[in-house]
Amino acid sequence: MSGNTFGKLFTVTTFGESHGPALGAIVDGCPPGLEITEADLQQDLDRRRPGTSRHTTQRREEDRVQILSGVFEGVTTGTPIGLLIENTDQRSKDYSQIKDRFRPAHADYTYHHKYGVRDYRGGGRSSARETAMRVAAGAIAKKYLASQGIRVRGYMSQLGPIAIDFKSWEAVDDNAFFCPDPEKVPALEAFMDQLRRDQDSVGARITVVAEGVPVGLGEPVFDRLDAELAHGLMSINAVKGVEIGDGFAAVSQRGSEHRDELTPEGFVSNHAGGVLGGISSGQPLIAHLALKPTSSITIPGRSIDIHGNPVEVVTKGRHDPCVGIRATPIAEAMMALTLMDHLLRHRAQNADVQVSTPRLR
Amino acid sequence: MSGNTFGKLFTVTTFGESHGPALGAIVDGCPPGLEITEADLQQDLDRRRPGTSRHTTQRREEDRVQILSGVFEGVTTGTPIGLLIENTDQRSKDYSQIKDRFRPAHADYTYHHKYGVRDYRGGGRSSARETAMRVAAGAIAKKYLASQGIRVRGYMSQLGPIAIDFKSWEAVDDNAFFCPDPEKVPALEAFMDQLRRDQDSVGARITVVAEGVPVGLGEPVFDRLDAELAHGLMSINAVKGVEIGDGFAAVSQRGSEHRDELTPEGFVSNHAGGVLGGISSGQPLIAHLALKPTSSITIPGRSIDIHGNPVEVVTKGRHDPCVGIRATPIAEAMMALTLMDHLLRHRAQNADVQVSTPRLR
Amino acid sequence: MSGNTFGKLFTVTTFGESHGPALGAIVDGCPPGLEITEADLQQDLDRRRPGTSRHTTQRREEDRVQILSGVFEGVTTGTPIGLLIENTDQRSKDYSQIKDRFRPAHADYTYHHKYGVRDYRGGGRSSARETAMRVAAGAIAKKYLASQGIRVRGYMSQLGPIAIDFKSWEAVDDNAFFCPDPEKVPALEAFMDQLRRDQDSVGARITVVAEGVPVGLGEPVFDRLDAELAHGLMSINAVKGVEIGDGFAAVSQRGSEHRDELTPEGFVSNHAGGVLGGISSGQPLIAHLALKPTSSITIPGRSIDIHGNPVEVVTKGRHDPCVGIRATPIAEAMMALTLMDHLLRHRAQNADVQVSTPRLR
Amino acid sequence: MSGNTFGKLFTVTTFGESHGPALGAIVDGCPPGLEITEADLQQDLDRRRPGTSRHTTQRREEDRVQILSGVFEGVTTGTPIGLLIENTDQRSKDYSQIKDRFRPAHADYTYHHKYGVRDYRGGGRSSARETAMRVAAGAIAKKYLASQGIRVRGYMSQLGPIAIDFKSWEAVDDNAFFCPDPEKVPALEAFMDQLRRDQDSVGARITVVAEGVPVGLGEPVFDRLDAELAHGLMSINAVKGVEIGDGFAAVSQRGSEHRDELTPEGFVSNHAGGVLGGISSGQPLIAHLALKPTSSITIPGRSIDIHGNPVEVVTKGRHDPCVGIRATPIAEAMMALTLMDHLLRHRAQNADVQVSTPRLR
Repeated sequence: MSGNTFGKLFTVTTFGESHGPALGAIVDGCPPGLEITEADLQQDLDRRRPGTSRHTTQRREEDRVQILSGVFEGVTTGTPIGLLIENTDQRSKDYSQIKDRFRPAHADYTYHHKYGVRDYRGGGRSSARETAMRVAAGAIAKKYLASQGIRVRGYMSQLGPIAIDFKSWEAVDDNAFFCPDPEKVPALEAFMDQLRRDQDSVGARITVVAEGVPVGLGEPVFDRLDAELAHGLMSINAVKGVEIGDGFAAVSQRGSEHRDELTPEGFVSNHAGGVLGGISSGQPLIAHLALKPTSSITIPGRSIDIHGNPVEVVTKGRHDPCVGIRATPIAEAMMALTLMDHLLRHRAQNADVQVSTPRLR
Repeated sequence: MSGNTFGKLFTVTTFGESHGPALGAIVDGCPPGLEITEADLQQDLDRRRPGTSRHTTQRREEDRVQILSGVFEGVTTGTPIGLLIENTDQRSKDYSQIKDRFRPAHADYTYHHKYGVRDYRGGGRSSARETAMRVAAGAIAKKYLASQGIRVRGYMSQLGPIAIDFKSWEAVDDNAFFCPDPEKVPALEAFMDQLRRDQDSVGARITVVAEGVPVGLGEPVFDRLDAELAHGLMSINAVKGVEIGDGFAAVSQRGSEHRDELTPEGFVSNHAGGVLGGISSGQPLIAHLALKPTSSITIPGRSIDIHGNPVEVVTKGRHDPCVGIRATPIAEAMMALTLMDHLLRHRAQNADVQVSTPRLR
Repeated sequence: MSGNTFGKLFTVTTFGESHGPALGAIVDGCPPGLEITEADLQQDLDRRRPGTSRHTTQRREEDRVQILSGVFEGVTTGTPIGLLIENTDQRSKDYSQIKDRFRPAHADYTYHHKYGVRDYRGGGRSSARETAMRVAAGAIAKKYLASQGIRVRGYMSQLGPIAIDFKSWEAVDDNAFFCPDPEKVPALEAFMDQLRRDQDSVGARITVVAEGVPVGLGEPVFDRLDAELAHGLMSINAVKGVEIGDGFAAVSQRGSEHRDELTPEGFVSNHAGGVLGGISSGQPLIAHLALKPTSSITIPGRSIDIHGNPVEVVTKGRHDPCVGIRATPIAEAMMALTLMDHLLRHRAQNADVQVSTPRLR
Repeated sequence: MSGNTFGKLFTVTTFGESHGPALGAIVDGCPPGLEITEADLQQDLDRRRPGTSRHTTQRREEDRVQILSGVFEGVTTGTPIGLLIENTDQRSKDYSQIKDRFRPAHADYTYHHKYGVRDYRGGGRSSARETAMRVAAGAIAKKYLASQGIRVRGYMSQLGPIAIDFKSWEAVDDNAFFCPDPEKVPALEAFMDQLRRDQDSVGARITVVAEGVPVGLGEPVFDRLDAELAHGLMSINAVKGVEIGDGFAAVSQRGSEHRDELTPEGFVSNHAGGVLGGISSGQPLIAHLALKPTSSITIPGRSIDIHGNPVEVVTKGRHDPCVGIRATPIAEAMMALTLMDHLLRHRAQNADVQVSTPRLR
């Protein structure tokens, strides 16, 4: 209730600061009987892990996850799954100089006023390091969803000014950017290299897609599938916008153009992005998210200290010049967690429902 | 939990179908001692009410709200506030022909598969008529927020292809579009008149702003203020995208450009839209939302019936050619409800906090 | 979240004051396709209704319930069910004299300090009149549970000093006390007649039983079936104690005596009351509750007014000399609501579970 | 939502099996600025710890708790507090023989049917070992409550057939039984020694009291303070009954006897146990709970195996002959957690309330 839990039936509650001893999570509500190992979680954690290319932060964390409960003899038991990742490469002294000052565009100022006290080391709880636990929990959701024929994947669809068209899923895992178009990779690398020389940062746009989603997930009115997905995606650090399907392009569309017509062979288009009336239509669920440029840059910026005096801030430490680059697995995790929660919610109420009408694609 | 409740401490739970006997809501958690009357709620309901100009649906509903509990001798008592609006102008026979067929881009197909049964009259629960209760509940939130110096207002920032710059709040209430630029109104009217002749519909973009928000609202990680706001706004019928502050424009911005620097005189810009790390910064809270074009149009569209046979659908009944036109009060309500909930959540945990650092604007 | 909602998946949110215009509730999460009519609800409401015998309050309320949504053509649609009962026989002037004073053992003093303002007429929200909505909502749960072979019934097991043994369910509905032993009824009547002459009130003990409960309902640790049931039963006005199975008698039992052994033919006893480890065992679920004597009596009592001055209070108005008499349908409702919620929660997580071990009785 | 979280604003979510690698918890919603150390938690854990006298299980667990987050430089930061206790003395082989059979009065049978799979070692999640985390979390709540003048304490009020009168709080910590009457201790020791010789177990009754509770805690109708307290106490392993104040004794009381009259000097009695209308009255909050005899005894008992065949079960391993003996700190923890949650909930809604009426004792 205090903000560190996601989901209502398949819940993930996380703890941990960037420079504390460990990060952890409790995943509650997982169906029993699911085969799961630490390796299943590690796979996604490694995709998010820092320090794997020159385009991301050079902090070197193994992000080695331990399963502490809820799994017995290789399968989930239905009891809560305790997860733990120990922090190993924190260098807190990098941060002592910002103890009494607010880095622009960071949460320093707001945490200070909200709580009166804050763990300033690396942003503490506001650090994107927290997302490691989302990815670990999301991997459990992904594994269960896969058993139901649902697959969640994401890719980078824009890096700063460079728009990227979707070419193939195979390409996505072949580069450090989750770029689905291999031909665009050299341009992305050149852009990032220049950005590092400029000591600046840039935003990105990520696209996530779930295929194989059954018709019927999502609750009407407030807990629509798209509304909960927007909640989950907007809760990722640095995200400033979320679109479902055509998103903001729908503003200038006409009804005759936007509506997805139905034929016995299936929907003829997917402007809606897989959701109608807040409920999944069985088409691919598609969302886009906008990430702002990393706030931690070494170009000096104006700010104030906790006494209200003007100061100049240069954010040292080890940071991603584009937080969007590592955001793809996080966005996948949030979509997987949202779907998992709604799958269970749907089952709770609608176990008796039998419909003879054929399902469309 | 089944989707018809918004908020955690200041909760709104709604019921009611488009063509049922009544719509209702229970607002729970309102602080006691707030002066409130039915007239306070009616004022916002009248702004959302159908049939007030030629550009909206011609269904004529009085939307007369009754307060059934929780208010005694003119002030709230802290107990739940029961609200009721009777439906008076439903014409259900308009809908009998779509009983067995799915209107394209409507929730007919998804409700049918989710529940196996549906109230097809006017979309039943999936109708935008449900939003009347959000507006009524939002008016209570607005009244309390106003007592704390917080003001929530919205306007139309784009209608179809016509972008609208913000000129003044005074202009917003002087036209049927919530258009903040009086000089744009004739163009909007001409566009809508042509659209009606084309029997088509169009999307819109709405902007909502809260001023006077204190620093510190929003919970870290999952229940960030912006994430919950995105949830609330995306839960409005027809919304396909939500942006906070610069939103998708942040994708191509650089960190040195996006970050809002601080000086002792205040923030020098508001790219963030009033939220840092998920917590309000004290700057104006700014969100934009994209509404898709109304699905109910009289241009024939391909669809199927509940047996899977191809059919042609023409949506009769009385509909808004642009649902975005009446969306402004609804978006305001969702922002007000989100802020109200977070105000109470913040108080719960942080009542003891004392900060000497000056608050910026 | 503010206390007026019961359940997590099958939720009941209520509103309404004793002397306000109406009572209402929203039942959310009901499975679609359940046949339900106002008559189904009325049946249980009539069992709780005041004024049906000389042993209960003489307030005459019809308690006529209306279903305002969520039911279409006789079946539930899966959307929220709005319920309304108009108050018709409130006589508010009876209460003006207690506006500024606190009736002993009532909630006047606590509401006053909690909220600073209170609807003093008939206790407002703290009145047992609120339980009408629990009964109406419980009737929906009962109807669904019946479709699953689960039956919830209750009876009075003690009135003041008179203990009552269970003889038959048939007897329960044949008298004004829900007394399962017809031979005890004359003694109960004589006791109550004397009590009225004494202008005093008395406590009671109620027993509720659910038969046909499947194995597996209840969530481990905090949301055990018995813990949630205790929550529900203790939330009924005037309840001061709850027991599951042998309850307090277990204190002086030995393990060899208390444990319910299992044989292939079934459990050999039911000391546990149908719950093991917080999860239903498939045996009858049994709970007992203690109700305190009605606080509203005409024997003068010492109290203070809102200024702290001593006053003498005589509670006039029309009151039950034993609130326990009408409590049986309310206790049944709370047990039904608890089971319904846990049935849905169980389905959500454990839809895949297949167990070959035979189920015991 | 899946049952492993307690509280709504001050939430405790736990994980861990009896014989897994570790137990853990996340405490969310703690106000910032509270001074807390691992030693504060250890103190209560040591009171619950097994193996400290011959009257409890001989399993030797250090129960050494680590704080992994949410505390920075000795004070809470408002972010979630991660807690971890590693299991060190599990002897899983003790349990292999009960892998395929259901111990009578244990959760084996119900977990098996609910989940289809279970960690049978020591009861897994259903073990009372789980309560260590409640005690750790409760210690945080107690520390905060103490800063508000609220003190929660408990004692044993009955062991099997031996009723114990309250004599002094000092006595409680001077013996292995939390017995408040030093003169009763020899009788308790003799009783327990005989019980061990009989290889049997016995029940107990515990009383918990909170002093210094402000008026106004508790939410009306469903989330009454007493209802939530009953929920919390009934969720403790082996608890079969809960009473508030006079509890079941109220059944045979008259209204003129039960009601607590008020004078300007204070309440003249406390039959209600500190709650009126579900809201704290400012008097001591008093609850009693009944614990059943330990199910794990070495007297053979009839049962079945997972194939439905009759078997004889003798529960070996190391067990408490009276689970009630170590239950006092757990009951205190649940009362502290309940009060803490309601303190925050009250603050959320009623921050503005000002009452001039004097508060009574």
